[in-house]
Amino acid sequence: MPIDYTHKPSHLTVVKIGGAVVDDPEALNRFLADFVRISGHKLLVHGGGRAASTLCRRLDIPVKMVDGRRITDRPALDVATMVYAGLVNKQIVARLQSLRCNALGLCGADGGAIRAVKRPVGEIDYGFVGDVAEVDYELFGNLIHSDLVPVVAPITHDSHGNLLNTNADTVAQAIAEALADRFHVELIYCFEQPGVLADPADPSSLIPRIDPSLYALLKADGVVSGGMIPKLDNAFKALAGGVGRVVIKDSANLLRNTGTSIEPLHIR
Amino acid sequence: MPIDYTHKPSHLTVVKIGGAVVDDPEALNRFLADFVRISGHKLLVHGGGRAASTLCRRLDIPVKMVDGRRITDRPALDVATMVYAGLVNKQIVARLQSLRCNALGLCGADGGAIRAVKRPVGEIDYGFVGDVAEVDYELFGNLIHSDLVPVVAPITHDSHGNLLNTNADTVAQAIAEALADRFHVELIYCFEQPGVLADPADPSSLIPRIDPSLYALLKADGVVSGGMIPKLDNAFKALAGGVGRVVIKDSANLLRNTGTSIEPLHIR
Repeated sequence: MPIDYTHKPSHLTVVKIGGAVVDDPEALNRFLADFVRISGHKLLVHGGGRAASTLCRRLDIPVKMVDGRRITDRPALDVATMVYAGLVNKQIVARLQSLRCNALGLCGADGGAIRAVKRPVGEIDYGFVGDVAEVDYELFGNLIHSDLVPVVAPITHDSHGNLLNTNADTVAQAIAEALADRFHVELIYCFEQPGVLADPADPSSLIPRIDPSLYALLKADGVVSGGMIPKLDNAFKALAGGVGRVVIKDSANLLRNTGTSIEPLHIR
Repeated sequence: MPIDYTHKPSHLTVVKIGGAVVDDPEALNRFLADFVRISGHKLLVHGGGRAASTLCRRLDIPVKMVDGRRITDRPALDVATMVYAGLVNKQIVARLQSLRCNALGLCGADGGAIRAVKRPVGEIDYGFVGDVAEVDYELFGNLIHSDLVPVVAPITHDSHGNLLNTNADTVAQAIAEALADRFHVELIYCFEQPGVLADPADPSSLIPRIDPSLYALLKADGVVSGGMIPKLDNAFKALAGGVGRVVIKDSANLLRNTGTSIEPLHIR
């Protein structure tokens, strides 16, 4: 009997870029030229790179840090909104449009796409920082089924009129997870390394696959530390939430079958 | 025989705000509270007010003027994109969302909504300024029929990857006209005056109706001059393009039946 493909959900690739590639127009254009070649439905989440810090400096807005973590006060939020949801988002959209990719830029406030909760004040008051509470999968689903390519800036809202600065890795994970019921979702975290490295100084030390038990070992040994931990936590959370595949790779390798594949624990 | 309403297109109100109301948070919030009470489908086009000039000053970007007209060089375009498509657009969207109005912010690049042509260099090189060439009525129609309320920033694109600064009055006229085949469109230009005044110093000198013959007289007498001329030209262009009704009024009077109604020439 032939396989019935009628109700097979279509494939959706959620790609997150950030950091260096956003700051480098040539690298960004190369990345976007690769991005448009991804077949099937796709969605892009971007960070803001250093442009927001640069603008803060030019405006004499001090970058407030507490325990190595950035605090988003009102002026910093306005700058993040201008840079992420304005300049970076629209430049990416215009570029994708010129490549015949029907990109539509939005932040979490638009269409009520991503509601967040202002992070409660504990030992640190992070200011206008939001933790994702709810993704409107219907809005994203409708945009995607209209053959639009959402380009998402990591600014969310609390549905009480406040914008909130939100971690772009988490935004990507939350969107991927929210759409996992409707699509076969693949989540790709792009950054400036070939993937998770056993030795951060040696690009050839790529770890091709990480499952939860290896992750526990790598954390215990200190091989994985710093900003890589929340990224991997997001990756495992996405898998647990129904995302089919998560890969961490170099943004220059978007179309190459490389990087670190994050995998669920296989029970034999 | 009863009238058949089955195929009667629904009503769409296109509102343009700019200038003073965008610069004054309290006035803006009052305006938005009125805006959400407009029944039927609606769409908002906003300018940027003085925020862009203020930011240019803080960044030591000179505001370039030639013959009293502003020139948009690359730094000025980046500021316009940040302020209009970023800060102002997202603050309005977040506010409307808090008022249970499902606003979705976009600029002309998003979804290829508004394609423009960079203004040809004649006696003046305006820089990155675009004249509207094409509005994607299908995109706007689909958003509106999904019960979203588009909030449009006056930044367009040339479909070759460039963003362009575009007059917000013209953007509102072009969208209203493009949607006139599908909706009964009313276009409302809001600003800080009760309407077109016979004496700019006397708010009680409101001219309630202007048709093309009166417009010709008012221009000849110098009653109408300066920035009011392109606004009225846009208004008449919208009527000629199928827009059912155009009103110029004070943003504080959005829900009041007042202002200057722009009307086609009635042939008796």
